[in-house]
Amino acid sequence: MAKRAKSLTKPWQRRLRGGADEAASELLASTDVDAALYKYDVSGSVAHAQMLAEIGVLNQRELSAIKRGLQAVAADIETGKLQPDARLEDIHMVIEAALIRRIGPPGRKLHTGRSRNDQVTLDLRLWARDAIDGLVERVRQLQRGFLALTEKHGSTIMPAYTHLQPAQPILAGHALLACVEMLDRDADRLADCRKRTNVCPLGAGAVAGTSIPLDRRRVAGLLGFPAVTRNSIDATSDRDFLTELCFDLAVLAGHLSRWAEDWIIFSSEEFGFLELDDAYCTSSSMMPQKKNPDTLELIRAKSATAVASLVGLLTLTKSLPSGYSRDLQDDKRFVFPAVAAMNSALTVAAGIVRTTKFRPQRMAAALEAGFLDATALAEYLVGKGVAFRTAHQIVGGLVARAAQAAKGLAELPLATLQAACEKIGPDVRKYLGAANVVKRYAPEGSAGRKQLRQQLAFWKKKLTVGRKSPERP
Amino acid sequence: MAKRAKSLTKPWQRRLRGGADEAASELLASTDVDAALYKYDVSGSVAHAQMLAEIGVLNQRELSAIKRGLQAVAADIETGKLQPDARLEDIHMVIEAALIRRIGPPGRKLHTGRSRNDQVTLDLRLWARDAIDGLVERVRQLQRGFLALTEKHGSTIMPAYTHLQPAQPILAGHALLACVEMLDRDADRLADCRKRTNVCPLGAGAVAGTSIPLDRRRVAGLLGFPAVTRNSIDATSDRDFLTELCFDLAVLAGHLSRWAEDWIIFSSEEFGFLELDDAYCTSSSMMPQKKNPDTLELIRAKSATAVASLVGLLTLTKSLPSGYSRDLQDDKRFVFPAVAAMNSALTVAAGIVRTTKFRPQRMAAALEAGFLDATALAEYLVGKGVAFRTAHQIVGGLVARAAQAAKGLAELPLATLQAACEKIGPDVRKYLGAANVVKRYAPEGSAGRKQLRQQLAFWKKKLTVGRKSPERP
Amino acid sequence: MAKRAKSLTKPWQRRLRGGADEAASELLASTDVDAALYKYDVSGSVAHAQMLAEIGVLNQRELSAIKRGLQAVAADIETGKLQPDARLEDIHMVIEAALIRRIGPPGRKLHTGRSRNDQVTLDLRLWARDAIDGLVERVRQLQRGFLALTEKHGSTIMPAYTHLQPAQPILAGHALLACVEMLDRDADRLADCRKRTNVCPLGAGAVAGTSIPLDRRRVAGLLGFPAVTRNSIDATSDRDFLTELCFDLAVLAGHLSRWAEDWIIFSSEEFGFLELDDAYCTSSSMMPQKKNPDTLELIRAKSATAVASLVGLLTLTKSLPSGYSRDLQDDKRFVFPAVAAMNSALTVAAGIVRTTKFRPQRMAAALEAGFLDATALAEYLVGKGVAFRTAHQIVGGLVARAAQAAKGLAELPLATLQAACEKIGPDVRKYLGAANVVKRYAPEGSAGRKQLRQQLAFWKKKLTVGRKSPERP
Amino acid sequence: MAKRAKSLTKPWQRRLRGGADEAASELLASTDVDAALYKYDVSGSVAHAQMLAEIGVLNQRELSAIKRGLQAVAADIETGKLQPDARLEDIHMVIEAALIRRIGPPGRKLHTGRSRNDQVTLDLRLWARDAIDGLVERVRQLQRGFLALTEKHGSTIMPAYTHLQPAQPILAGHALLACVEMLDRDADRLADCRKRTNVCPLGAGAVAGTSIPLDRRRVAGLLGFPAVTRNSIDATSDRDFLTELCFDLAVLAGHLSRWAEDWIIFSSEEFGFLELDDAYCTSSSMMPQKKNPDTLELIRAKSATAVASLVGLLTLTKSLPSGYSRDLQDDKRFVFPAVAAMNSALTVAAGIVRTTKFRPQRMAAALEAGFLDATALAEYLVGKGVAFRTAHQIVGGLVARAAQAAKGLAELPLATLQAACEKIGPDVRKYLGAANVVKRYAPEGSAGRKQLRQQLAFWKKKLTVGRKSPERP
Repeated sequence: MAKRAKSLTKPWQRRLRGGADEAASELLASTDVDAALYKYDVSGSVAHAQMLAEIGVLNQRELSAIKRGLQAVAADIETGKLQPDARLEDIHMVIEAALIRRIGPPGRKLHTGRSRNDQVTLDLRLWARDAIDGLVERVRQLQRGFLALTEKHGSTIMPAYTHLQPAQPILAGHALLACVEMLDRDADRLADCRKRTNVCPLGAGAVAGTSIPLDRRRVAGLLGFPAVTRNSIDATSDRDFLTELCFDLAVLAGHLSRWAEDWIIFSSEEFGFLELDDAYCTSSSMMPQKKNPDTLELIRAKSATAVASLVGLLTLTKSLPSGYSRDLQDDKRFVFPAVAAMNSALTVAAGIVRTTKFRPQRMAAALEAGFLDATALAEYLVGKGVAFRTAHQIVGGLVARAAQAAKGLAELPLATLQAACEKIGPDVRKYLGAANVVKRYAPEGSAGRKQLRQQLAFWKKKLTVGRKSPERP
Repeated sequence: MAKRAKSLTKPWQRRLRGGADEAASELLASTDVDAALYKYDVSGSVAHAQMLAEIGVLNQRELSAIKRGLQAVAADIETGKLQPDARLEDIHMVIEAALIRRIGPPGRKLHTGRSRNDQVTLDLRLWARDAIDGLVERVRQLQRGFLALTEKHGSTIMPAYTHLQPAQPILAGHALLACVEMLDRDADRLADCRKRTNVCPLGAGAVAGTSIPLDRRRVAGLLGFPAVTRNSIDATSDRDFLTELCFDLAVLAGHLSRWAEDWIIFSSEEFGFLELDDAYCTSSSMMPQKKNPDTLELIRAKSATAVASLVGLLTLTKSLPSGYSRDLQDDKRFVFPAVAAMNSALTVAAGIVRTTKFRPQRMAAALEAGFLDATALAEYLVGKGVAFRTAHQIVGGLVARAAQAAKGLAELPLATLQAACEKIGPDVRKYLGAANVVKRYAPEGSAGRKQLRQQLAFWKKKLTVGRKSPERP
Repeated sequence: MAKRAKSLTKPWQRRLRGGADEAASELLASTDVDAALYKYDVSGSVAHAQMLAEIGVLNQRELSAIKRGLQAVAADIETGKLQPDARLEDIHMVIEAALIRRIGPPGRKLHTGRSRNDQVTLDLRLWARDAIDGLVERVRQLQRGFLALTEKHGSTIMPAYTHLQPAQPILAGHALLACVEMLDRDADRLADCRKRTNVCPLGAGAVAGTSIPLDRRRVAGLLGFPAVTRNSIDATSDRDFLTELCFDLAVLAGHLSRWAEDWIIFSSEEFGFLELDDAYCTSSSMMPQKKNPDTLELIRAKSATAVASLVGLLTLTKSLPSGYSRDLQDDKRFVFPAVAAMNSALTVAAGIVRTTKFRPQRMAAALEAGFLDATALAEYLVGKGVAFRTAHQIVGGLVARAAQAAKGLAELPLATLQAACEKIGPDVRKYLGAANVVKRYAPEGSAGRKQLRQQLAFWKKKLTVGRKSPERP
Repeated sequence: MAKRAKSLTKPWQRRLRGGADEAASELLASTDVDAALYKYDVSGSVAHAQMLAEIGVLNQRELSAIKRGLQAVAADIETGKLQPDARLEDIHMVIEAALIRRIGPPGRKLHTGRSRNDQVTLDLRLWARDAIDGLVERVRQLQRGFLALTEKHGSTIMPAYTHLQPAQPILAGHALLACVEMLDRDADRLADCRKRTNVCPLGAGAVAGTSIPLDRRRVAGLLGFPAVTRNSIDATSDRDFLTELCFDLAVLAGHLSRWAEDWIIFSSEEFGFLELDDAYCTSSSMMPQKKNPDTLELIRAKSATAVASLVGLLTLTKSLPSGYSRDLQDDKRFVFPAVAAMNSALTVAAGIVRTTKFRPQRMAAALEAGFLDATALAEYLVGKGVAFRTAHQIVGGLVARAAQAAKGLAELPLATLQAACEKIGPDVRKYLGAANVVKRYAPEGSAGRKQLRQQLAFWKKKLTVGRKSPERP
């Protein structure tokens, strides 16, 4: 026989006989995660009660009792005095039960015209809205960190890589501002998600609404929502806003993983472009010499957390019938860890960016290898009237020859260059070498000084303005 | 020894000796998928050439030759006369090689100031922009389909379910419009994605830009892009727009999977609410009696395609170093099938919605079971001054009693009702039964007639307007 | 500046100056999850110490002190007296530090010839081996539950569905034993995973082994491992055994999701085949009449948890360089919740199977619809010499006619049948109707009585034997 | 109205009126992928027909006609003479229809006692069994490639890395054999998957079996299956064997991604340990000097393909009701590309391993940095009676000092060493330096010469034996 849990009789469960099975109770409970929603649950209930009073369901005395009661319950949870009882299944019922214990009859009126189905999605929307704001602020901080680093070290010349092979010389700041670009799309996406999150579902009831003449727009107004949901079935089934948040975090985490990968490679002994501050490294329990970039690795690892959460939510909701199903309760188990992980990753990333030291002499040394001026040489030939595809082949041949001679292009005698293409003149010297190449970058968005200044100006304006006034309308 | 493929000498490959290994050539080739990009590649090249002429890299004769040549190559691909040669690796090189074969020297100038790295992401952005427009149009079609069905059958009363158990009575149209809501968020998300897609990367070169003084804004203008990318490293590494597109499709596919699940269940013998048109069913090779909702099942299945594509892209780009890596070539293998699958699913879904028959008598029969008026009875008691939580318990007890007697709540004698709560009066009869319940739904967004009219009005306005003028600014 | 955490000086970190940044410390810490490994860490250390004594690195006094000390530390963790300090990063360092505090100098010898890199994978293998054994036992329990239900209700006739449309009549037990089949493959896969898990990595050190002449096979023997890993780099990098465990759980969870889906549908009002025990249902906070199959829904939901964990691990390890990287620390964040979720789901599933009631009269009623004997009629014609494909078409036509007349095939007059095919004789009556169909199932594995007896005999033998002796060799 | 496709009347579809909608037909068709199954479909049908003849359903003339007819159809598909008509939905129906066209009436008997549901899973099992054998052979080839490279370059000393920071010196062969280890688990897992694949489902019919007295074991025997499935519902619903295959490929692809990552990094200019053969590199369309490891990058990328396929299958089957649903048709769209991708990746990987050149002098140079002998020094102190944790701290301090002085540990004067720990004697010189460290590796599985010999002996025996006789029993 199923072992009955010594269970609280749940007040909303007169319909069923006896308690739940013990293992079932554990499975059914979400208090281990949803306790984090308690503040939002209380705010939501206070607004709901206020509106219930305004439409005459509660009198002023009842309203006051409920408000005071809810604040007291919140305080008890805050201080740990009230430990959520898992047998009550979730934080919503924990709070309602505590309220009724504390204030008696008026507490039994709070749930009028409401279901856990609309209540929980309200709480999640309030939570997600705050989470997004916190994340965007951290993204902005990190962008500002890259900006500051660009202002400090941005004009150092270093190799850019494609396929992890040396490609062209760039200003280091250009690479740093590439990160600012990625992060800006993340902030942008989060703002779009916020827009879709910021709609009030309360009043949708269990699935079909209610006969109680709730003033839904009033509740929305009290909670800072600019709009209410239009359809009660959708309102109680919809978890898009959480899935979208997880996606935004998965892309953000992917961006951080790419940056972390770069910096892990750049701080290897062999590259040696960067030195991380000890505060962001750890040593080894066995190898006494080690200084490992563990924080970068854990930041890289968080892409797994975010992707897993996203896949979890997509799998969870796949082919669920419409209307609330209990499967949805597990949404929090995916979205909460993803948000926590990314908050942590962003904060630490900002610290790393703030404290890492550049090693310009190692960067300079790396400019020697890899024929970084080959493209510039081909483009020099274009200036002399050679078709680019032909120029490309000529330079390809010169590179092969230089490689055999273990020399750079700039080290080849002019005669050798001219043997490959007679249009090469002595002015070619002003085109070869990393410094010359960087000087000549022409169009918008290239890796030269002029373009760096433009980008810096753009970002300083955008990120400083963003700092003063709140991002959202 | 590696077996050398009898390879074309690739014109851009003077640097390397000998041909590629045969198996390597196959791995390196993407012509089996990227041939789909040929139109976009040609448009992009035409715009690039136009600008090269304007900045003096090409003369008018060369420009004309290139334009005519590219159009001819496009026509040859269109008609199948030109079969992409996999040894040339990708469609971009196939087109350049064909152009050079056809027009000679001027063709060798086309690639000036350009790399495949910025070229391929340009093509992808042009493709994705079109793909999004096509998807949004199909989403709108499907929304209009649901709207038409609502106008036809929307006022039939049926049960709403939560946990696949009868919950409350609703108008059928309310359930249909819940689908319109989901789809609207999908269209909204796609529009946001379009915004981030619609930026011109050409001019970013391989990773660092170029010394050729390209007029990037001119190219952008010719191709209908309102803006250019700001940073060449980011521009060539970024695949966010494709990942976001796949995510939008994964959520859209999830929505369709939930709707399909509903309708598969609703068209079971046991529910019997719907009858699919034969055009959307198949039979069995063994069981002669079968009429199966295979199209709905395949629509449901496409959520797997979309989720897989999304995960593929996220995995692909995870912790790639910055700058183009060849891994990115596989992006198309994920995003193309996802778009194709969703185009197909949306089109077929619209056909199903257009042709499915409702069976109102089966819906009516289903209203008898499941005590759909229990919540209304509890809310009736609230009107009589009973606290909701108490009312809930009273009704819970009545339901248990009625269930034992195999009766509906409306069939219980008044005396029985009053024994449970003395506040119940004879007026309760006007609150029980599905029809009465539906009449009394009060707030915005509930499942009653008034709310349905409001929703219909909203959607007819939005979706008709959307039809006339293009969605985007 | 990075805010330094008021940190313990980690004894293994003389190489680095100052403490870690506070946010970095939080990111680096895994004590919130890996505390669960403490028992395994202590067993592993005891075995390591025993071997160190045998090879002369420890004397008997030191060995005794270490053993006693470790047991005391374990007891302190068990009772909550010792709270893992997150600044020590992980449970391994928490235990070593506590040991040194408690027993002094000998504690400083424990880590000889060992690194956290081999230590942590040892602990994980010990943990996973136990986890697998617990999971397999739960799988076996659930199989036995289905077996018991089959013995009780197995011979009831019900429809089998394909595409959720009625297909052919079956014995209910045949459907139940299909679940036993799926679960058996799960147990089989878990056993295969155990085989690959059950190899001792200790002695691999940080990545390259050690100059200390450890007796690795002795440690393996003490810990019940039949073998040691062959290559230290692989031993410290490999997390296949965890990924494989997560995969096995993802497939298991998928199986449970399919069964749960069936039973959710079967316990809908409209199907009505099953009634879940109240102990596994919950009601609604708003709708007093509800009895929802929430536990089945949460079991279905756990497929999302398992899939997410699997994807998490695959993403985490994708393209990590060889040798330990800190990313691997997050492995536990994926595998632990998956195991916990599936333990819970399996336990509750067994309870549901044990307590659910069949409603044979509803099953019988469902046999009336859907022409379940159509295939049998076609096969009857095959017996009369009609080619199957022709027979299939004849019966297809008859079904269409019967459907129009709203009759079953058995209700059609013989004349009507003969008009469709003259080979039909009066003996056809013994072939029509669900009971007749079930009687005639012929080959092994079909849904008839004989086959059910065979299957039952097989499973009773396998699952009873499995009960007595341990599964593994 | 739905636009009817000018459709073939499908012979098994008498039940439904009119043709399918055009877009629906496209959605329903799988001929674009499942044509690859034609050989297996023909083998399966030949075996089925043989058995039908033996039980008297076919006479010898009919059997001969069917066999000849099927071979002819196969030949027509092989040569492209028969193009699968998508309106027939799938390759199974294409073949049956072609057979009937070709041989007339006997062809209409072939499908006796069979459904597409058991037929398709039979074909998939036959296909998967072959696919696994092909994959295992390629895995073995690659292992042998690593083995050959180990015999050639294995004794070169190079740094091992953890966290991409220098850790300890190793023999290069030790790193190569770590790859052989990973791959061996892959082969092992594939063999386990083969075991579960290698079971014959034919005879399970649509879902419940059949009244035709098929001899299932005879068919199994003809097709080389050692066993038949036990339960028809499970047999037609089960796709575990494909999901497991995709998982095995996802782990294998993960292994290749890690190896590719290592070698991409090792062939960077900055590391310079390896030089890839030109046959496995490509250049750039813009940068003439480039030699990029594109094949390694694409191999790394295939992990995304395999993970996506796995997730696709898991999502597809999540919470499908039991019995065949059309969703399953899409299984091939996931598993086929994964197998193709891994076949390609394995083949190219073997070519890369065969042709890559080591650069021992760059490896030797890298041994100078990173204090690779620090652990050995600490273990030297253990030999002198110092507790390891103390030794670790002492050496940590020495490393810090040496780093400041920009010296290696071996370059510190003895006095400096002794100042840190008086137990250090002049014999310490025989412990410092990479060569000395490698000499002293003691236990099984470490990175020294003795252990390399042991590993080589083991693998040569295993992989040579494996070459002669077939892997499977």
